[in-house]
Amino acid sequence: MESEFIAHLRKRLPGHPCLRLGPGDDAAILNLAGRSDCVVTVDMLTDGVDFRLGQADPRRIGRKSLAVNLSDLAAMAAMPIAALVALAIPRSADALLPVELFEGLIDLAESYDVAIAGGDTNTWDGPLAISVTAIGQVGPSGPLLRSGAKPGHRIFVTGALGGSILGHHFDFEPRVREALWLKERYPIEAGIDISDGLTRDLARLAQESGCGALVELDRVPISAAARELSGSSGADSTALDHALSDGEDFELILAVPPEAAAKLEGMQVLSARLTSIGQFVAEPGLWAVGQGGERRPLEPRGFEHRLGP
Amino acid sequence: MESEFIAHLRKRLPGHPCLRLGPGDDAAILNLAGRSDCVVTVDMLTDGVDFRLGQADPRRIGRKSLAVNLSDLAAMAAMPIAALVALAIPRSADALLPVELFEGLIDLAESYDVAIAGGDTNTWDGPLAISVTAIGQVGPSGPLLRSGAKPGHRIFVTGALGGSILGHHFDFEPRVREALWLKERYPIEAGIDISDGLTRDLARLAQESGCGALVELDRVPISAAARELSGSSGADSTALDHALSDGEDFELILAVPPEAAAKLEGMQVLSARLTSIGQFVAEPGLWAVGQGGERRPLEPRGFEHRLGP
Repeated sequence: MESEFIAHLRKRLPGHPCLRLGPGDDAAILNLAGRSDCVVTVDMLTDGVDFRLGQADPRRIGRKSLAVNLSDLAAMAAMPIAALVALAIPRSADALLPVELFEGLIDLAESYDVAIAGGDTNTWDGPLAISVTAIGQVGPSGPLLRSGAKPGHRIFVTGALGGSILGHHFDFEPRVREALWLKERYPIEAGIDISDGLTRDLARLAQESGCGALVELDRVPISAAARELSGSSGADSTALDHALSDGEDFELILAVPPEAAAKLEGMQVLSARLTSIGQFVAEPGLWAVGQGGERRPLEPRGFEHRLGP
Repeated sequence: MESEFIAHLRKRLPGHPCLRLGPGDDAAILNLAGRSDCVVTVDMLTDGVDFRLGQADPRRIGRKSLAVNLSDLAAMAAMPIAALVALAIPRSADALLPVELFEGLIDLAESYDVAIAGGDTNTWDGPLAISVTAIGQVGPSGPLLRSGAKPGHRIFVTGALGGSILGHHFDFEPRVREALWLKERYPIEAGIDISDGLTRDLARLAQESGCGALVELDRVPISAAARELSGSSGADSTALDHALSDGEDFELILAVPPEAAAKLEGMQVLSARLTSIGQFVAEPGLWAVGQGGERRPLEPRGFEHRLGP
């Protein structure tokens, strides 16, 4: 969602006794049945923006439509429970399209033990759009918000970053298990998933926490895909540029107090390596420090993920 | 959703311990936090099918996108708690479009005390699509399912039927308060909302209950709009035809045991009049009886609501 429009909505939306945490984080938290641990989120994928129907296997599209929502739940350290799926199917599409979309979606749902609780399939004259709502539950140690980072906390990321356009944006594993595992064992104080690029999402987390963030550039884990993109002919971005600003890594950024950070550095949590890439600082904004050791402003260059032509 | 595809999904979707009631009713019921009273539903509205952008005030479109979901919760006798909204906005649209959609939606949310818990607004090259997920909670007397009607139960409907295309399909009041009020006071045994037409939705309820339904045609409450449509030049449907088969009345069909039925007949519940229009019968299928007193098969002629050209 556009940040200006989110800012408008956050002011405009009335409060509600059932809304423990409203729009603005990776997901909202609801009081339901006297318990305040129900986490909900919605993400819509559209043809031409998040995928190209005709170029991608519909199963991968269906999988992605659920995976991006599970990534939001991971960023709240919430266990996924259920998902609801709404489809707008082009009238001209093959009759099997909704079936195949659901097959990809159900496969992922089964591996994360998510119930498909509802669906609404519509046919229309427009392109394919898929909206998935995911419902989860916070664990005993509470939710992971964007607002808990403090100066001195180390910045961790899972996995390696950049170049998701080469396939990772479809096939990524949402870091659900990693987030739950970590949150129950270590004092993880804030988190966000990387949907719009490391720098942009880190800037968001820092802003919500009322602090800044300093990235140690030579520590940023760079994916093989980011290196491949930077090495291709005519490339005008370095592999580090890709890691800093490519969207749809769907890895986690975490804020960890120093004592715990020392234990987590380089740890392999399930299928993701944890890397400390800097620390939160008192000065607002985003900062970088390279090999020279000099601190300079770092522009949050993330972008909305754009598909190639 | 197309009934064939629903049938496919109901077979294909794996069961889940958190899913007390899966897809197939007006909404699903989840076990969350050890309580089995969380009701969830999703409905997507699309340009050209459910509204025409450019012909309708965006506020009415936004209102409808939430109202249809509240109607599904009403059909479960669930109290609405929260909603999540995903928008696909045409790139060419006025920048105010999402704001106005939300204004209509928020107005209705406030009057039903619904928290807007999340949103995802996307811009794309396609037409306008709006997906809303609603979350509610079942009251002390439990949910209202489609499967509880028994032969001998009277068929009740709220309001007057037909002709929603003249405006009611935007401005209807979801029968949330009526459903909750009735369910807590009377043995209402089954319910569904009329989205695809009285006969089609009544046939669905009867089928889910394993029985049939007999409609006493001269009891069907006909709306002024249905009369207006049948009276217009070139009309080839009677007002009763419209009441039997027009979509998007968003009134309730209820199954009521005879003793309670005698008390409810003609009662004004909040803003809706209750009318008994027949009874559930042992023979499967839909039946009609007119002034002649002879029983004949009644074809479920409901249709997906189609907008005029």
